[in-house]
Amino acid sequence: MTLEYGLLIIAIIMIIIRNMKINCYDRADVMTTRFHNSKRIYTKKSKYQKIEVFKDKNLGHILSIDGDVQLSEYDEINYHEMLVHVPMAYVKPTNVLIIGGGDGGTLREVCKYPDITNIVMVEIDHEVINASKRFFVNFRSAFADPRVTLKIMDAFKYLKEDNGILFDAVFIDVTDFNQSDSLFTQESIQNLKLRMASDAVLGLNFTSVGIAEPKTPVRVLNESGFGERFKHKRLFQSHQPVFTGGAYTFAFFSDSVDPLDFPSSFPVDDLELETHYYTSALHKASFVLPKRLMSD
Amino acid sequence: MTLEYGLLIIAIIMIIIRNMKINCYDRADVMTTRFHNSKRIYTKKSKYQKIEVFKDKNLGHILSIDGDVQLSEYDEINYHEMLVHVPMAYVKPTNVLIIGGGDGGTLREVCKYPDITNIVMVEIDHEVINASKRFFVNFRSAFADPRVTLKIMDAFKYLKEDNGILFDAVFIDVTDFNQSDSLFTQESIQNLKLRMASDAVLGLNFTSVGIAEPKTPVRVLNESGFGERFKHKRLFQSHQPVFTGGAYTFAFFSDSVDPLDFPSSFPVDDLELETHYYTSALHKASFVLPKRLMSD
Repeated sequence: MTLEYGLLIIAIIMIIIRNMKINCYDRADVMTTRFHNSKRIYTKKSKYQKIEVFKDKNLGHILSIDGDVQLSEYDEINYHEMLVHVPMAYVKPTNVLIIGGGDGGTLREVCKYPDITNIVMVEIDHEVINASKRFFVNFRSAFADPRVTLKIMDAFKYLKEDNGILFDAVFIDVTDFNQSDSLFTQESIQNLKLRMASDAVLGLNFTSVGIAEPKTPVRVLNESGFGERFKHKRLFQSHQPVFTGGAYTFAFFSDSVDPLDFPSSFPVDDLELETHYYTSALHKASFVLPKRLMSD
Repeated sequence: MTLEYGLLIIAIIMIIIRNMKINCYDRADVMTTRFHNSKRIYTKKSKYQKIEVFKDKNLGHILSIDGDVQLSEYDEINYHEMLVHVPMAYVKPTNVLIIGGGDGGTLREVCKYPDITNIVMVEIDHEVINASKRFFVNFRSAFADPRVTLKIMDAFKYLKEDNGILFDAVFIDVTDFNQSDSLFTQESIQNLKLRMASDAVLGLNFTSVGIAEPKTPVRVLNESGFGERFKHKRLFQSHQPVFTGGAYTFAFFSDSVDPLDFPSSFPVDDLELETHYYTSALHKASFVLPKRLMSD
């Protein structure tokens, strides 16, 4: 074998190793978070998107959609507890609507409230639910709750129909690209409001805090279609270490409830709900944004 | 030229490109944050450490020590404002000690208080100050403040000597490896306490919140040498998007002040200090840790 052949083989092996070792990442425009010890264990191209599951030594299973990290078993608790328990502190709902959330994490938290009698979950892609049931053991049991009605359909279409149900709490837990776009149209928001009780609350997975963004999250909120159509709109935050930048904002919307009018007692305490991230003290603190994120 | 030579050259070029494009990162055990658009513009091997400065399209200049990202111009504001203004809300200091902080960011925030008459900064490595003065325009002016005495020496040695000054506020802003180790010995902490007034406060850059760590930050605090020697110890947080995981904790120590006894008014408001991240509302919220970080 010649020297050139040897060098060539070494070079090719080096390239392969560099590309093999790290195979899951969360990408923002400014920087990328790469997971050291993750291995892809599942890939499915559904009708709507590419669903992947990675197994990471430290973070557990990671769900990725179209190459974008959606959640890890390590920090999904932060996200789902905040998205659900913050809005739920202001209502005593019997009817709850979840749009998206096919992984089941939002559903798991909603199911913790014993007074709810009816939970409708509208998820466009059954393959997300399949992947989640198979790889995310912490979400599995929620799907078996008898109060849950699963609708595999486009939420845009679901909201058009009047099913005679007025929802007391709505949670939107969707990707912010592709098939979610129709949800954020004026028509869709208008239809959503027709399905909500007058004292209902809405929680939305809003946006990563991001880095060096041209607009603050508050400005994005004020300019958003949802922001324009609800009397009260506020952002609250969580740590999401596996997302690039590490911080995430959720949006709270309501026509009757200003979330800064905190309740005198919180369901998490009154009902002794089991949580790992959320507390009533954190609930209040989560609405306090750093000054630089507040400007309009 | 043969085919093999051609392939060899292409392979080598690919390796070079992969290694060139991304040249600054923040590494944790679990994941790495890589900056897309950064370019190294300065390298200096000092007596103590390797100092590098990167220029990033979105984040501005980035300071790295021994391959570990220390700060970016984009988010140093979060860090330095929280480290300084939180402890300062409980004292009206005339004498302030800064240990480390060679970049000058902590110094810049301390200098905002007009009643301080004497600021001693003890930094072991003059090359950090040199690099900072050259590349970080936002820190430069602080070094020219006439109230500042710069001591280029090991803080361990500085604390041994009695200079007759009792400090009202102390800020420790150091790397958590190598030459900082001697600072965290019982002897050093004991000497530090001898230099502090009885009603003094101490702010320490504590630790990244981290990911999948074996111990919570609160447990690390309770087991730390500082934690054992002060009556009051509390953690407070900031967003640091360029650090892996995105969240950081500072520690507050005092023998006389419990930081949860918030002042009735805050210097940032009373003195109309200019801040971009810190507010008195955020001050209070920053002490509320997520439940999972609190367990001992």
